[in-house]
Amino acid sequence: MLRVIFLGTGGALPTVNRNPPAIFINIKGESMLFDCGEGTQQQMMRAKTGMAFRSIFITHWHGDHFLGIPGLIQTMSFQGRKKPLEIIGPKHIDRFISDILSLCYYRLSFDLKIREVKAGDIIERSNHVIKVFETDHNVPSVGYILQEHERLGKFDPGRAIELGIRPGPLYSRLQSGKSVFVGEKEIKPDEVVGPKRRGRKVVYTGDTRPSAKVIKASRGADLLIHDGMLLGALADWAVESKHSTSIEAANDAKDAGVKKLILMHISSRYSDDPTPLLREAKGIFENTEISRDFMTVEVPYQD
Amino acid sequence: MLRVIFLGTGGALPTVNRNPPAIFINIKGESMLFDCGEGTQQQMMRAKTGMAFRSIFITHWHGDHFLGIPGLIQTMSFQGRKKPLEIIGPKHIDRFISDILSLCYYRLSFDLKIREVKAGDIIERSNHVIKVFETDHNVPSVGYILQEHERLGKFDPGRAIELGIRPGPLYSRLQSGKSVFVGEKEIKPDEVVGPKRRGRKVVYTGDTRPSAKVIKASRGADLLIHDGMLLGALADWAVESKHSTSIEAANDAKDAGVKKLILMHISSRYSDDPTPLLREAKGIFENTEISRDFMTVEVPYQD
Repeated sequence: MLRVIFLGTGGALPTVNRNPPAIFINIKGESMLFDCGEGTQQQMMRAKTGMAFRSIFITHWHGDHFLGIPGLIQTMSFQGRKKPLEIIGPKHIDRFISDILSLCYYRLSFDLKIREVKAGDIIERSNHVIKVFETDHNVPSVGYILQEHERLGKFDPGRAIELGIRPGPLYSRLQSGKSVFVGEKEIKPDEVVGPKRRGRKVVYTGDTRPSAKVIKASRGADLLIHDGMLLGALADWAVESKHSTSIEAANDAKDAGVKKLILMHISSRYSDDPTPLLREAKGIFENTEISRDFMTVEVPYQD
Repeated sequence: MLRVIFLGTGGALPTVNRNPPAIFINIKGESMLFDCGEGTQQQMMRAKTGMAFRSIFITHWHGDHFLGIPGLIQTMSFQGRKKPLEIIGPKHIDRFISDILSLCYYRLSFDLKIREVKAGDIIERSNHVIKVFETDHNVPSVGYILQEHERLGKFDPGRAIELGIRPGPLYSRLQSGKSVFVGEKEIKPDEVVGPKRRGRKVVYTGDTRPSAKVIKASRGADLLIHDGMLLGALADWAVESKHSTSIEAANDAKDAGVKKLILMHISSRYSDDPTPLLREAKGIFENTEISRDFMTVEVPYQD
């Protein structure tokens, strides 16, 4: 399972139906949060995500992307959390987290582990890695690539039977890359198992202008979640505020050859009816959706 | 009009249907906010209160009572607010507000006026005053009394006609405290206008143990909004955490002779069904209600 739950999909100005940015991802039981706008803890309660995840990844230190942290860690502490919580983010993380901690009288029941990251950093996990790439916003900012580990190759049962291998433990042995014997004949894994298959890839840009770095990071992604907050008519404002129009996001998606694009950080102008944003993006990249709070997306394997 | 809108009625652990504390009050067009928990700006949008109010009064510097400030002032700034915003609260206000401001990269479009208050302080307004009183919590904390100015006395039209005064401008002149002449006979205001009538009074305790100071502050209030977050069975925990049971709140209301009691800061234990809290309080003080998010209460004149 690779499930993406949008907890907040609005811009810096939240609305009655769009919280500030927060995305919860669960990949085969390992879960994490990307950005944590004000009110994220209640959104998690509403979406029933639980709060036992390991890490929060922050794209940049604008209030709408992290002001949910103080309330969330207070609630985790009230709930008696013991497991450390990692907070990962770009330059100035120490300053912002220490400011957040000084806001509170209470003592946390768990440790906070702070890690400042920059483009090129890789965070290892048991079934995936998170890679950091540079984005183009008006404060230090990064995006994140969630890259699932390679999967075993495809097993060819027809070929296995031809070779006289009976279904059972030998199949598993072959698929895990070991040879087996049928009588005295050695069967090597590559005779019945295809090449390793790539894992799934999800990219989240946070706030950004479209860029070659975003395209490179998103190459072949199964899902690209891209800042796409403005209509083409407001392209000048997108340049000035260092955001993207939905057209620009769609061009990044097309150039990167992704499978699916979801637009985030929807301007309050289009909060209730983002159809115009969608229409413009689909003109360039058909498989586009507009995020909405509590939207849940399952990312399937492509092969 | 004296309208109280409950924007957040939960405790330190918010729930899906109770935001952390925030109360919006509008008295004859002058509006203000008491406490400002995380998510208050969106609650204001949902309740359509507008954001053009002058002051935020904070009862104490626990996160659940003020973590909505950074997002709210950011939104006010995006909206181009020019009018200064006053933030009023107890000891350590400078530290907390400067921490909040250092959380943000942006520059505000308006000035913040910070005022530290202590018990006995009085904030003057055009149609009311706000008086500060001491509460009993585990960090420096205060409560607030909103006291409407005295109203003009009751005009007795029957008596006025007996005295030969014709309805019209003379009535207004008399009611505003000036004499009038009917022929050569002087009529003094107190012949047709009763004594000045007291204004309405609303008291908000914030988080507190029940106390003689709360009772004194609440004497004769039209509405007392009191911490009443726990059942009597959890009285020990109320003592330890420096909160009140609903029974204790009801006793304060009864001893102060208030007209109406509304319980606030409802523990997440009773968030969905606070009936047991209500039942216990009503056993002592009948005119009790439990607050809920978006509840709106009009406070009428008593005479």
